[in-house]
Order: sequence, then C-alpha cells, then structure tokens
Amino acid sequence: MASDDHYLAVDIGGTKLAAAIVTGSGQVVRQREVPTPSSEPEHLVTRALTELVADVCATTPPAGIGVASAGPIDTARGTISPVNIPAWREFPVVDAIAEAVGGPPPRLIHDSTAAALGEHWRGAGAGSSALLGIVVSTGIGGGLVLDGRPVSGAAGNAGFIGHITADPVGEHCACGRTGCIETGASGPAMLRWARANGWTGHSTPELAAAAATGDATAVAAFRRGAEFLAGGIITSAILLDLDRVVIAGGVSAAGEVLLGPLRAAVIRDDSADIRELRIVRAELGRHSGLIGAARHAMTP
Amino acid sequence: MASDDHYLAVDIGGTKLAAAIVTGSGQVVRQREVPTPSSEPEHLVTRALTELVADVCATTPPAGIGVASAGPIDTARGTISPVNIPAWREFPVVDAIAEAVGGPPPRLIHDSTAAALGEHWRGAGAGSSALLGIVVSTGIGGGLVLDGRPVSGAAGNAGFIGHITADPVGEHCACGRTGCIETGASGPAMLRWARANGWTGHSTPELAAAAATGDATAVAAFRRGAEFLAGGIITSAILLDLDRVVIAGGVSAAGEVLLGPLRAAVIRDDSADIRELRIVRAELGRHSGLIGAARHAMTP
Repeated sequence: MASDDHYLAVDIGGTKLAAAIVTGSGQVVRQREVPTPSSEPEHLVTRALTELVADVCATTPPAGIGVASAGPIDTARGTISPVNIPAWREFPVVDAIAEAVGGPPPRLIHDSTAAALGEHWRGAGAGSSALLGIVVSTGIGGGLVLDGRPVSGAAGNAGFIGHITADPVGEHCACGRTGCIETGASGPAMLRWARANGWTGHSTPELAAAAATGDATAVAAFRRGAEFLAGGIITSAILLDLDRVVIAGGVSAAGEVLLGPLRAAVIRDDSADIRELRIVRAELGRHSGLIGAARHAMTP
Repeated sequence: MASDDHYLAVDIGGTKLAAAIVTGSGQVVRQREVPTPSSEPEHLVTRALTELVADVCATTPPAGIGVASAGPIDTARGTISPVNIPAWREFPVVDAIAEAVGGPPPRLIHDSTAAALGEHWRGAGAGSSALLGIVVSTGIGGGLVLDGRPVSGAAGNAGFIGHITADPVGEHCACGRTGCIETGASGPAMLRWARANGWTGHSTPELAAAAATGDATAVAAFRRGAEFLAGGIITSAILLDLDRVVIAGGVSAAGEVLLGPLRAAVIRDDSADIRELRIVRAELGRHSGLIGAARHAMTP
C-alpha cells in the first residue's frame, strides 16, 4: 500500500461502535464513535453501524476496509455474534458494511486480534516474531501475531486466552467451564476478591491506586490476578514459542502493580526459554483495534 | 513449484538421521537413513549427516532443501541443539548441509512442525485451517499449521505441547516443571502407571494389545493418558480456534484404545466450539517429517 492511502477501520464492541479513517502509515485521521445500542432490536443496531461508517467515509473512498469485532465471529461467512450485542447473531457484518460504503470487500478480524496486530504494527509489539496481546478489562481477551501475521484460527476466534484453565478446582466461569483465567484475573474478579477480603473500595482504578500506595489487600488482589494471568502466559509461551506479551485494557492502567508480579510469576517458572519473554504494556490505548483493523485491510 | 521438481528433505532425530528426495507433489522417491551416532563426538555425528545427504543428492540437484530437526532449534541462526544428540549444541546444521550439497539455502523447521505440515499437505490434516499435530511416543511433541502455514514461534520451537501443564500438583517432569502432559500421556508414562497398578507386561505395544482385549488396568492406563492429552488439546483448541488434531507417533498405533477416550474427554468439556474439533490418526507414518520438510522447502 502507499502510505497516503486511506483505509476505513471499524471496531465493534458491546459498549461502543467506532470507525475511523487510518492512513497507510497508521495515523488515525478521522474518528467517530457512538454508544452501541445493545438492547435495541437488530435493525436499529445495524442502522447505528451503517450510519457511522457512511459518515466516516463520506469524504474519502477507502483503499481498503478492516472490521474488528467482539466475538464470536466467523471470518469465512463474514458474520459476527458478539456476546454483548444480543440483537446480532450471525449478523452479516461484512455485507452490511460493503452495502453501506461500497469499495473493496471488508476484511473481518476479531477485535482482540486486531488490537494485537495494531500493537505489532505501530506499538509495543513492534519487531516481535511471536506476540501475544492480552486485553485485561471486564473480561480477558487475547490475540496472536505470529511471523508478522495475525492468527485467525478456524473461524477467527484464536487468542481466547481468558478461557483456558488456570485452576482446575477453581470457580465456575460464565462460559460453563471451571477455573478459567478470567475467573481470577479480570478487573471484576480482582475487585470481588479484594472486597471479599475486607477491602472497602468500589472500582478497579481505586483498587490500583490503593495497591500503588501499599494497601496489603489491594496488592494481594493484583498479585492473585497476576498468578492467574501468568499461568495462561506460560502455557501460551510454551505452545507458541512467544517472544513478547503486550498487556492492554483498563486494568493494565494499573501498570507495575500488575506487571511487576506478573513478570515475577513468569520468571519463577523453571523454563529458560520463558525467562527471555518480554512482558510490556500496550502503547496505542483505545486506538489499537482501529489501527489493527486498518492493518488487516492493507495486508494481502 | 513444478510437481516434477525434486527437493532434498532431511529429518534429524536422536535415533535416526533420514534424508530423501521428495517430488513437488509429495512422493518420496529416494530415501536413506542411518542410526544417529548419538554418543559419538561432534565431527563423527556431523560426518554421518553430511555423507547421508551427499549420498541422497548425488544424482539429483535439488530445487530446494528442507531440514526437519528435533529441538531445540534456532531458525534465525540455522542451528540445532537436539536434546538427544548431546554432541550438537548450537550446531550450524544449515551451513553444514549447504556445504555438503550446494544448491539453494536449506530451510530449517522443527521436526514436530514438519510432521504436522506433512500431514496437512498430504495426510490426515488436509483441508484444515487450524491444525495441531501431536506425536505421542517416548516423549510428546507437537506442531501447528495455521491458515496453511507452519507456525515457527520466536526461534522455531512452537508446538511444544508435551510441556504445558496438565496437573499442577502432579509428577515432577524431566524439563524441570510439574505435571506436564508428558508426565501422564507419553508411552513410558502410561507403561509406568500400568505396571505400578499391577499390569505385568513390558512395552507400549503390549499394553495397547492388552487394552484392546479389555484388560481393565491397560484400558485405565490409556484412559489416564487420554485425560492428560485432552487437557492440552482443549487448551490449544481454545487458544488457537483449532478445527483438527492429528495424532501420530508410536503410541498412536494403539488406535481407538487411545483415540476413543481422547475424543470422549474433549467432548465432555463444556465448550460448544470444541465439540466440532476432529481428532484423527496420522496417515503418513514415518514419512511425515520428510514430506513436511520438503513442503517447507518449496513454500516461500
């Protein structure tokens, strides 16, 4: 692609729908977002999306279109069934966006994979040949970029690290399995554990602030979350010979409160290869998905 | 490539060194192997390899060269340090083979990854878009082929499924970690468990034969191995959105004695996506590594 080409990038989540024009060099030059009307019927959710992309595209016919979406997705069919947008089940998002804006066929990618791809292209994953990006937030998502290419998996849902098992005798998870990483390392899980152990605050940012000032329960909550997350990272590193992990999402704002014990837990593992793994914080913030979607649009 | 092009394929293991000419359509047309002189000093092991490849290449200058090796390997440096060939540590195999036979630069790949790639190209993995190949033998190895491409990882050692954790409070593993899949699902592990529980035979094939005739302890030993293996398959399937698993290696000769309980354990997992995963037996036998190495040589 030429660096002055303009790509349409779309990022579909349960909270917001975002679209932007992204240049061939990764600059976000025009961005719009609207709250996702998650509780509305299908045609209204669809209209919110098509109006958004038409608005962003009005002045610039795109050289390519990349669509990142919350999962599950089906890249072969071009459909999405985001858990938190119940009106859309096997919704043909690729066709809907193609119809709304024309141009080249939209390319669909899981939002966590797009975030990892964005960080690999223009952020904290640059230069990695085997990258796992993890989004630690209300849930835990992940995406993989191996040999410079995003890993899709059979239907597009690879990277689902929040639901591999960390504790076989642990808590029941909303997904139906037991002891998933998400049951210990998500923001709400850390918060729940801290409150059950006497901490009296109400939010993850508060918990991070308390940990930063040395509150023992808050520190322990992040340490426990880090242990869960470390298990998933170690498993992934062994299976995929990773050289870097990029941590993003709201909870990553806690910074060293989370990353410190996370690195310690991974280093403690008796595997020389894993000790060379770098664990770093994401750099692109909320733009990572859009930038990754644009990158996906421009890669053959 | 043209289907009548001829490729040199090399497969380096602790027991044997194999080399072959493989056609562009995957036919093995000329194969030689020698026992690996594993306890000899470096120059004798190296000589065994270079004489072997020169012999196989004598009449046919290859269109490409693919080298599969037991790990650890380092694809960027072109070196190998196979656990069971102590004389070779960071041995520059790519340079040694290039010097011995000339031709295009050899391309290095992990032997488990080569086996998976061979099965994907010409065996039980055909048509898969997200394949895990597992070799169940004295140890347990694995290789990944995603979107049709072999997954290397940072240094070439991706797919190391034998050493992800199945049982956090399990047996100590030779790798230094605890409860690795290999501690329960390898041939020797199943044999050890069966003998500790009163079975009096001496080999894995005997154990498989006993299980096939309904010996309760033998059946239980394979079931236990299947449970360990299922844990790694489930984790990999969640992380990589797999659509197929191909089981190879000596222990896979047990067939349904292993595959039956393996499928049952995976299906029992509460995840709809995993239920669609197909678990099948490898088709290429001992040629899978050579065929995969040749495929690697011909893929840009």
